[in-house]
Parts: sequence; C-alpha cells; structure tokens
Amino acid sequence: MRVVALAGGVGAGKFLRGLVRVVPPEDVTVIVNTGDDLVVHGLSVSPDLDSVTYWLGGVMDRERGWGRAGETFRSTEELRAFGTPGSWFGLGDLDLATHLFRTEELAGGGTLSQATAKVAARFGVRARLLPMTDDRVTTRVEAVAADGGALDLHFQEYWVQRGASDEVTAVRFDGVTEARPAPGLLEAVAEADAVVLCPSNPIVSIDPILAVPGILSAVAARRDRVGGVSPIVGGAPLRGMADRLLPAAGVEVSAAGVGSYYAGRGVLGGWVIDEVDRALDQRVRALGLRVLVVDSIMADDAASERVARAALEVALGERLPG
Amino acid sequence: MRVVALAGGVGAGKFLRGLVRVVPPEDVTVIVNTGDDLVVHGLSVSPDLDSVTYWLGGVMDRERGWGRAGETFRSTEELRAFGTPGSWFGLGDLDLATHLFRTEELAGGGTLSQATAKVAARFGVRARLLPMTDDRVTTRVEAVAADGGALDLHFQEYWVQRGASDEVTAVRFDGVTEARPAPGLLEAVAEADAVVLCPSNPIVSIDPILAVPGILSAVAARRDRVGGVSPIVGGAPLRGMADRLLPAAGVEVSAAGVGSYYAGRGVLGGWVIDEVDRALDQRVRALGLRVLVVDSIMADDAASERVARAALEVALGERLPG
Repeated sequence: MRVVALAGGVGAGKFLRGLVRVVPPEDVTVIVNTGDDLVVHGLSVSPDLDSVTYWLGGVMDRERGWGRAGETFRSTEELRAFGTPGSWFGLGDLDLATHLFRTEELAGGGTLSQATAKVAARFGVRARLLPMTDDRVTTRVEAVAADGGALDLHFQEYWVQRGASDEVTAVRFDGVTEARPAPGLLEAVAEADAVVLCPSNPIVSIDPILAVPGILSAVAARRDRVGGVSPIVGGAPLRGMADRLLPAAGVEVSAAGVGSYYAGRGVLGGWVIDEVDRALDQRVRALGLRVLVVDSIMADDAASERVARAALEVALGERLPG
Repeated sequence: MRVVALAGGVGAGKFLRGLVRVVPPEDVTVIVNTGDDLVVHGLSVSPDLDSVTYWLGGVMDRERGWGRAGETFRSTEELRAFGTPGSWFGLGDLDLATHLFRTEELAGGGTLSQATAKVAARFGVRARLLPMTDDRVTTRVEAVAADGGALDLHFQEYWVQRGASDEVTAVRFDGVTEARPAPGLLEAVAEADAVVLCPSNPIVSIDPILAVPGILSAVAARRDRVGGVSPIVGGAPLRGMADRLLPAAGVEVSAAGVGSYYAGRGVLGGWVIDEVDRALDQRVRALGLRVLVVDSIMADDAASERVARAALEVALGERLPG
C-alpha cells in the first residue's frame, strides 16, 4: 500500500513514527511544509523537514519535541554574546551540522529535494521525504502588536521570536504562485493508495503545501482516499499556536471546525477525532466525511501506530488487517 | 607611540599579547593576512583574523595554539557523519559562533573590516584589527603530489587537509591585483612610529599583505622604522610549514635567509633573531639591518613582552625605557 502524507513539523513527526509501523517505510512518501524555512546567520534552515527527519530517524528529543536528543547549544549561547539579532533562533550544536550540510549542498547547486534525501539517508530514514517545493516559499504572518502597530513577520519571528503574542490578521505564502511542486510529488499523490493529512497546523503547515500550484487539485482528485487526523483535541491544539491562527482564517478551533475547513477545500474523505471530541461525531459526518474516534494522544510509538492505523482506515473506508 | 603590526595567525597572536604589554593596545593597529580565508559549509572563515582576535582577547587555547580554550567539536563531529567533503576543516562549537556572526554581517552588506571590528569588540580586544583588504584574496599553493600529479590547492587544503605533504612549486594570491587595502590601513602605516613584522610565515602570512597594491610601498617608505622578528629559529619554523614554503620562493630556511628576503624587498630596518642563531648576527648586519639577539621563544606573556620590546627597539634603533 503506497501512502502519501502531508506534514508539518513535530506533530507530523510523531504521527509518522506510527505510520511506518503500519506500512513499510519504503512505501511512504512524506510531503513536508517548507514555508517556515529561513536563513539564519547565512545557514539554510528547514524546521519542518528537520523535525520529520529527526523523528523518523529516531534522533529526536521526545521530551522537548523539537530538535535532537542529547543536544547542546554551545554555539548559539556563544552567539548571544555577540548580541546578534538572529540568535533568538536557537540552533543546537548537532542540529547545526544539518544546516551546514544543507547550506553547502544548496550552494553547490543541489536542490532542496536532493539535500533532503541526503539528510534523510544520513539518519537512516527509509521513507521518502519531499519538500513541498524546491522553490523558495515564505510564510508571512500579518499581525497587530500589543501597542496597535501593524506587523509583517516571518512565521518564525511570529512564533519563536515573539512567542505568538501578536493578534494575527492574515497569513500569506510569499512566492507560492511561482513555486512548482518538488519532482515526483504530484505523481506520488496520483499513485497513492491513501493520502494522509498529519495532525499538523492547518494554516501554517498544511495550507502552504496545498498552496503550491497543482498540489491542491492533485489531492482533491484523491479526496475519497484522503484521511486526516485532527490537530485540535478538546478545543485546543495539542501543541503549537493553531488556536491563534485558525480564527484569522475564520475557522472554529475544534476538531469539527478543522474537518469542515479541509472538507470545504475538497481535500478530505475521512477524519480522525479524539475520544474527548466524540460528541462532534455527527457534525463531522454531516460534512459527508467518514469518521473514526480514537485516543489520539501520541505519548509513545504504540500510540502513534494506533492513530496512524485510524488515519489509513478512515482514508480507505475499511479496516486494515492486523 | 603608534605601532602597526603585520600579522599572520598563531605566531602573531602570541607576539601581539606581548606587544600590548609594551604599548597601550589603543595605539596598536594590527594588519592581518586574509589570504587563508575560506568559505566552509557556507560560512565565511578568517583563520588569521580569528587567531589574532582570540589571542588578544585571551580566549585562545594556549596549548593547542589555534582555536578557543574549552572548545568542543560537536557540530564538526556530527558533520563528519554526513561524509561531507568540507568536514576536514574542524570548526569548534564556540568558534562557529564567530563564523556565523561574520557570515551574517557580510551577508547584510557589512565589510570584513566592519565585521572584524565587531568581533574584536565582543572579545574585548582594544587594539585595532584590520584585515589586509575587504576584497577577496585567496592564497593558492601549486604543488606536486607524491604520485607526481600537479596540484592547485587553496592554502587550507594544502595545510590542514593534506598536512603540507605535497612538494610546493609556487604560491600565488588570486584576486590580489584588484584588491584595495582596508580603509585606514595605508594611513596607519604612514603615521606609525614603528612598524613590526610579526614572527609569521613570510610566504603565506606576510607576503599576501604586502601583495595588496599600495601596502608594499607604504611599508617600504617606512623601512627605517620597520622591525621584524624571525619566525625561523635554529633553521626551523617554531610552528607551521615555512620550511616547506621558503625553498619554493628561493629563500634559505634560516633567520638570516628570511631577514635577507625582507631586506631584499625593501621592507626591513631591523631584525630580531634568537639566541641560538647568534652566529648569524654578522650576516644579518651585512644586509644593512640593525640586529637584536633575544630568547625569542614565547612560552608565556612575559616572554612575548620581551620579544615585542626587542622588535620595537630594533624598529626604532633605540632602547625603550623600562
């Protein structure tokens, strides 16, 4: 069974560890958001690609969620002594190696797809990881500061530097209209037996992917084979700032609200919601979606496997053996 | 007393720690070789500027000579796991911060002079550090490999990657004819009371500086106020690979040979040689140079001060008080 997963960062990474326990990793293609990518101190940083890689490679810091286990921050701490404006973005010493490698690959004329494949191989990741595009797309957050001033921020500035403290008015993806899907991406979607929307932020993780010309229609064409996992449980995101971004897009902060959002865009066939949201079951069915209710908290790999199995079953509309 | 010093890396750093004990650091301008500069994994690395900065800032690893005290190599070791070709150049985790800072400053439109001043300020260096130029100059080593093949190497490839194991046939400074001296450099030389040639490699540390159009003639114009310290003691370099580079330039590997080389270029008024080379005294005087014989081994700051004092005295042709 060939599976394509649309993924953001940490939530996706957790989920994907389960997915590759349900289907052979070689049969999984992960399409990863690159709208959060940024250049820090001259280094090309791809936060979501790295999160997915570290989680699938088993080198993630499970407690903290982001970054690598056993990480240290000697370089970044040292950089703070320079008082440099970029040092709010904490780069771990081990993590730095990934960015140094990618930066050099890109400087040498390699594409992000190629660099991503090499990074994945170094960490023993057997699933295929694809950036949503090899072109530069940048998620910008338009917001209002506490003092009433208008802000236009790189997503990472909004999230990491300013702690999602500003009131968001709009999100846009600079450069996306000229971006092309990464090589092989559309084919993978077309040939997949199931397409999965990971429990990632709909506005800044999944939407940027769908905004790359060609991807939304490719996924919509497979709508009946698409299963998603709600990133909202009990009316709040399991992690991240979706609760502050969804309202700006007019989306209710609930499992039903996000399901409705995806359904309205024509990219969802089935929806996995958490047991605490069981009461929303009928509302979701009324959208024309299949529904599965599971304990969606992914505290360990076995839990991730349970959620991934539900996502596949809701995508296919049938129970999997085993 | 205003002093200008022409400097390479570690040998110069050691010497300069003594110099700023003899004259106030604010009165010292250090002109540093940038021919060894390179881009590693996208980062702008200036080995000699950093060595001088770390030594003057007191954060050097005195035992190892290069790099910072308490350094770790987590990023570089991690990078080796990628099998990337640039990982032969070991970047320490603390050292990386300097390169990240400089790379970002340059990417933001700052000059190397400006970035250098900021790095120096961060380490509390009160002497003025100037790169020889803000333009890109690259020292290339032409050599013959053990198998007889012709090589054309970046200096760092020759020295760090290949361990100076190839037979050198020529050294050249790519880009130097178009390079301009760093702002303020020629004025500093013209206004100095004394100019000092640090005990650095004549061929790949001092020569690149002198090769920047305008600098040789500016130093030559002050010839009678120039004092140098021999980097060759007892017929061998105290550190580095000068013994393998001097013959390619037709220079005898001795304190007299290097003194003669500088004198022939018209940039030397006095020469400090080590006590073990006392027998060369007359040969050096015959070149028309003043000579001072001292114990030139700089095992600690007091020893560096002794050598720096001698360099100033031989430059000025008079004893300093104290």
